[in-house]
Amino acid sequence: MTRARAAVLVTGSEILLGRTVDTNSSFLARQLDLHGVRLIRVLAVDDAEASIVGALEELLATGADLVLTSGGLGPTHDDRTIACVAKVAGAELVLDEPTLATIDGIVAEFARARGMDPAGYVRGNRKQATVPAGAEILPPVGTAPGVIMPVGDQRIVVLPGPPVELARMWEMAVSSPLVAPLLAGALPRRVLRVYGVPESTIADAFEDLGGDGGGTETTICASRSEIEVVIRAPDGTEAAAERLAAGMRERFGRAVFSEGPATLEELVLDTLRGQGRTLATAESCTAGLVASRLAGVAGASDVLVGGLVTYSNELKHALLGVPDELLAEFGAVSAECAKAMAEGARRATGADVAVSVTGIAGPGGGTPTKPVGLVFFHVAADGAERALERRFPGPRANVREWSATAALHLVRLVAQRA
Amino acid sequence: MTRARAAVLVTGSEILLGRTVDTNSSFLARQLDLHGVRLIRVLAVDDAEASIVGALEELLATGADLVLTSGGLGPTHDDRTIACVAKVAGAELVLDEPTLATIDGIVAEFARARGMDPAGYVRGNRKQATVPAGAEILPPVGTAPGVIMPVGDQRIVVLPGPPVELARMWEMAVSSPLVAPLLAGALPRRVLRVYGVPESTIADAFEDLGGDGGGTETTICASRSEIEVVIRAPDGTEAAAERLAAGMRERFGRAVFSEGPATLEELVLDTLRGQGRTLATAESCTAGLVASRLAGVAGASDVLVGGLVTYSNELKHALLGVPDELLAEFGAVSAECAKAMAEGARRATGADVAVSVTGIAGPGGGTPTKPVGLVFFHVAADGAERALERRFPGPRANVREWSATAALHLVRLVAQRA
Repeated sequence: MTRARAAVLVTGSEILLGRTVDTNSSFLARQLDLHGVRLIRVLAVDDAEASIVGALEELLATGADLVLTSGGLGPTHDDRTIACVAKVAGAELVLDEPTLATIDGIVAEFARARGMDPAGYVRGNRKQATVPAGAEILPPVGTAPGVIMPVGDQRIVVLPGPPVELARMWEMAVSSPLVAPLLAGALPRRVLRVYGVPESTIADAFEDLGGDGGGTETTICASRSEIEVVIRAPDGTEAAAERLAAGMRERFGRAVFSEGPATLEELVLDTLRGQGRTLATAESCTAGLVASRLAGVAGASDVLVGGLVTYSNELKHALLGVPDELLAEFGAVSAECAKAMAEGARRATGADVAVSVTGIAGPGGGTPTKPVGLVFFHVAADGAERALERRFPGPRANVREWSATAALHLVRLVAQRA
Repeated sequence: MTRARAAVLVTGSEILLGRTVDTNSSFLARQLDLHGVRLIRVLAVDDAEASIVGALEELLATGADLVLTSGGLGPTHDDRTIACVAKVAGAELVLDEPTLATIDGIVAEFARARGMDPAGYVRGNRKQATVPAGAEILPPVGTAPGVIMPVGDQRIVVLPGPPVELARMWEMAVSSPLVAPLLAGALPRRVLRVYGVPESTIADAFEDLGGDGGGTETTICASRSEIEVVIRAPDGTEAAAERLAAGMRERFGRAVFSEGPATLEELVLDTLRGQGRTLATAESCTAGLVASRLAGVAGASDVLVGGLVTYSNELKHALLGVPDELLAEFGAVSAECAKAMAEGARRATGADVAVSVTGIAGPGGGTPTKPVGLVFFHVAADGAERALERRFPGPRANVREWSATAALHLVRLVAQRA
């Protein structure tokens, strides 16, 4: 079967003014990829009717089987997506009574909880319950219903702007008889996650290995100093995909730290959980970022007991027992201090494993011998330890983010060798 | 003067496959807004030559004065932006020798540092130094130069994909004689940042106050449970903008926590710094997020001394001195525990002010009396304290993010009343 093609339309002046980062199109892109649909373009325009109508017409003209829209479903006058879809489809707008009853119910409860009069919402509710004739209605997740509007063989799928609402309503759209037949399921794929190798080196290796000459569809993508290689294998290209993956594994060895969907944080927690070991952090320049990223994983609490953020030298001494003489001799940004911090965190928390980070995030604080971006790491565990020194480029946020990633990889390496 | 109009083209299969979130277009959108340029559309397409050429032609056809592109400048065969721009502009591609020398120098140093042979880069360097005849060359930030290509009265500004490189090269483009005359400077604006009021309530108030009927251009935008209202005032609408701002202030009072560019984190740090006071954190469910957000501000270290991440009850007792009996009677997720945590953090760190967070981030761990999303906060300071209880909806990441924001606002309120 030929793969279906899709286009995404994002509306909203706040996007074009840069007041919000659009994450919906990236969510939908990932979802479409997982359903075997090829996304051909993403277009963002402002809230004006002419802009939205023009954009819908353009996207339909690409021949895309699916046009997904995000945003513009609210109760106010500048939420115009539904009206524009009706216009483009040549459909009348009609009030859907069951949907109105649903919205009235949701809004009444909302208003009651806040001591407000539901009467103030009548007009907004009617607007949100007004949909193009002939559309399939997707029930509201917040207060706005979505719709799936057939236009000939094409479908416009209208989804709300708030990311949580969009994600849930997308799940409903997926099982609609208007959409489901277009979804083929993901292409078979291999995912290799690589750490510690420059993206350009991986791109070179990919070319050396013949690239996508065998019909595979590969993306190489850097994020947070990790590189993710996704090799998609359309029918008949599985062997080529495996050759590529094998070549990458052979070249990059242990730098390929994962071939599954688990994130780095999940890998660290799962490995330690499997060993029955607990983890604590001692953070200076990252100041809680390492602990916080771990705690972002549901169920982290059975491995992560806690951590100490010791920004000042006084606290490095008071909470972690780093000797004042050590601080005076080597400074807080040193391998010696990192080691003492990790050991101190184990003592203070009783955790089996502790990881420390101390460095200069910048923009101030650098010296010729200890420049901005210089960061020391240490992992202390029962019968094992491991130190690391890195110098990261870029602004403060980069140095802190990359430091947190490096700290997590150091824990992973120690844990995986246990 | 009429405001210039711009369009942004983002290229890259990794965007259309959802492997990366595009933040470049949002950065450029903000920058254009600050330079008084109206962004009319953002378009993302894949790396194929036909896609990029088609997209450039479409965007030029909108009549935009500026077409900015992001990505596709690398050394490999699927980096095609420059070649496509040349094609669209009808310009020949020529090797620029000074640029080649610059790139050779950068790459040689890079290769030397990694013990690799610079000879391997010859082809890539030549490709990156090949630019359309008649273009202004923007020197490389990484290894790729950008270009500004005039096409009649329009300009295509070609910028690299890595966000840090893009941002620096944009600064260069701004002062180019081909671009600078199009930049008018930001519209006069009023920014009101509001916390604790639903977005819909603010939207209603805005409509009641007459909306943008006076010619203003307002955006109302929620992020991290704060609402940012930006009222832009084109010529002759300053009075209308001030009426709107005054109406908002009157209705929302102290919920308008800032009218300047300072972020919440900067406000908290600046207020405490002005009082000569230090701050510490005691975090359970946020697990370092509060400390980390503060530490994201350069110079945070003269206010933030550190913090304790006490995920387990044992650490709440051991590090913060929360009595075991208190934990047994009220549980770790309680106002009593939050208070004891904040007081314990002051004791343990010697900070003048301490803030605590303890709650249930979910998805597990909820009970009928203590549901997922329930979070307690406490600020302890010399002669002042303040408690807060909240119930946040949504997934784990939301609960944690909103909790961190709530904790920072609680510190702000205590500090501003001192």
